[in-house]
Amino acid sequence: MQSTFASAQTAALPYFDEARSADVVNARMGEQTDERLRQVMSVLVKHLHAAIKEIEPTHEEWFAAIRFLTETGQMCTDWRQEYILLSDILGVSMLVDAINHRRPSGATPNTILGPFYVAGAPEYPSGANICLDGKGEPLVVAGRVADINGNAIPNAKLEVWQTNDDGFYDVQQKGIQPDSNLRGIFTSDAEGKYWFKSVKPRHYPIPSDGPVGKLLGAMGRHPNRAAHLHFIVTAPGFDPVITHIFTPDCPYLPEDAVFGVKRELIADFRKVDDVTVAERVGLRAPYWSVAWDFTLATAKTV
Amino acid sequence: MQSTFASAQTAALPYFDEARSADVVNARMGEQTDERLRQVMSVLVKHLHAAIKEIEPTHEEWFAAIRFLTETGQMCTDWRQEYILLSDILGVSMLVDAINHRRPSGATPNTILGPFYVAGAPEYPSGANICLDGKGEPLVVAGRVADINGNAIPNAKLEVWQTNDDGFYDVQQKGIQPDSNLRGIFTSDAEGKYWFKSVKPRHYPIPSDGPVGKLLGAMGRHPNRAAHLHFIVTAPGFDPVITHIFTPDCPYLPEDAVFGVKRELIADFRKVDDVTVAERVGLRAPYWSVAWDFTLATAKTV
Repeated sequence: MQSTFASAQTAALPYFDEARSADVVNARMGEQTDERLRQVMSVLVKHLHAAIKEIEPTHEEWFAAIRFLTETGQMCTDWRQEYILLSDILGVSMLVDAINHRRPSGATPNTILGPFYVAGAPEYPSGANICLDGKGEPLVVAGRVADINGNAIPNAKLEVWQTNDDGFYDVQQKGIQPDSNLRGIFTSDAEGKYWFKSVKPRHYPIPSDGPVGKLLGAMGRHPNRAAHLHFIVTAPGFDPVITHIFTPDCPYLPEDAVFGVKRELIADFRKVDDVTVAERVGLRAPYWSVAWDFTLATAKTV
Repeated sequence: MQSTFASAQTAALPYFDEARSADVVNARMGEQTDERLRQVMSVLVKHLHAAIKEIEPTHEEWFAAIRFLTETGQMCTDWRQEYILLSDILGVSMLVDAINHRRPSGATPNTILGPFYVAGAPEYPSGANICLDGKGEPLVVAGRVADINGNAIPNAKLEVWQTNDDGFYDVQQKGIQPDSNLRGIFTSDAEGKYWFKSVKPRHYPIPSDGPVGKLLGAMGRHPNRAAHLHFIVTAPGFDPVITHIFTPDCPYLPEDAVFGVKRELIADFRKVDDVTVAERVGLRAPYWSVAWDFTLATAKTV
């Protein structure tokens, strides 16, 4: 069927070939391609082709994948990032976070920032209450910021944000919750200590009305995140920490939809019934109390 | 930092862990998950995590990927499928096609259908001219449809479509080209033979004004497809063939943007100068002539 002419002319050329398909694609990149892009695309093409060879999708399955990827993009708006959700539920966001935040043993581990962080939280003095809607079970969070050797870090900034007792962040309920409800920035004292009042956080679902929610459902998974407080802790000369602390009694702790839980970040929330102790912190008993220390690694010099 | 209570309670639970990240994600799938979906997602997650571990993306690179995937979805309309383009330029479409169309040696190989096929092409008698706009260099395509043993297949349907001499399909230029320009269905005769008139096809670019075109450019690649005619050949009892035939002199032959070229599909287009021969087929010399036989494999019984 093939002419001798064409055969002789083109025998050495890189036509498609099932066995070495990824090599054929990667060989096509131009010499001027940015070296990092070349590396990234080569690795992606290699693993993508390997996955397809292992899956052997039918044409219908391939088209279902095309449709899913298209709909995931089309679900995105200025307020909804469905591809980040996809990255989250496949453990990719946590993996990228882990790769970028390998720390010396003993340092507080990082976790993902999440979509509900907003800059510009109010600064508060120690002991202030960040719960402005009065809902939920009162909580005192107290601890110390120190370096790997246990030396106090004074003047560290601790930014905290969390859901209210209905399982929503203030930015999800503008006009319903008070502005900056359950957000605040605190500063560690001369001994590295900090404390503030809040309420016990609630679990909440990631948005599940899009293609990613449908995929989660098809995989027999639920959209809930285990209850947590978010923190960013920064101090000059130290590696900033973006992290969570988790309540130990949340039913979704071992099934956090975005794999955000790390064992070292599960805290001990204790109930305080003592009326005198409660009075001292300006609360009525019973209330919850959690002691939580942050250990910062020295900033890497670049 | 971690409480003894939480530690004892949760030690065996599947929290995120960089080393075994893909296993943690895959272990989360529910028992009721469809078996095929479980297999597909497990393989995808395994290779996705392996790729990320090899790439070690920065947070900025991860976010650039999120943006790219989002924009690719948002480029899609009823008339533009940017994710299929992405699949095409990464060799994925050809790989899926190859996996689904493994044929006995000697059978005409498959290639991708492409986005410009439309059902309902006119049926023509042998020898008809499908070029309705009179542009381009005249071409005669003639050959035979046979089975693997060389036996003629009469009454096979041969559907052909191609670009005009400006490098556009009729559906890309509605109102500019005549309807059904360069599309037609022919039928093989009692000896399995077919022939028709057309024009030499031109190379053309895939749409390159979207995110996929930008990626192609960044990889030092151009968007051109090597010049070809598309065919679908069907006959009862035989495996349908979706294929191309390529001109041997197209400069983009070794660089087809979607990897659609297979060595066995490069044809021998010959120039005919003989006036008498030209008169016999109803053309003026010189014209192009290509002899092309199709070999069909017996349909697989399911």
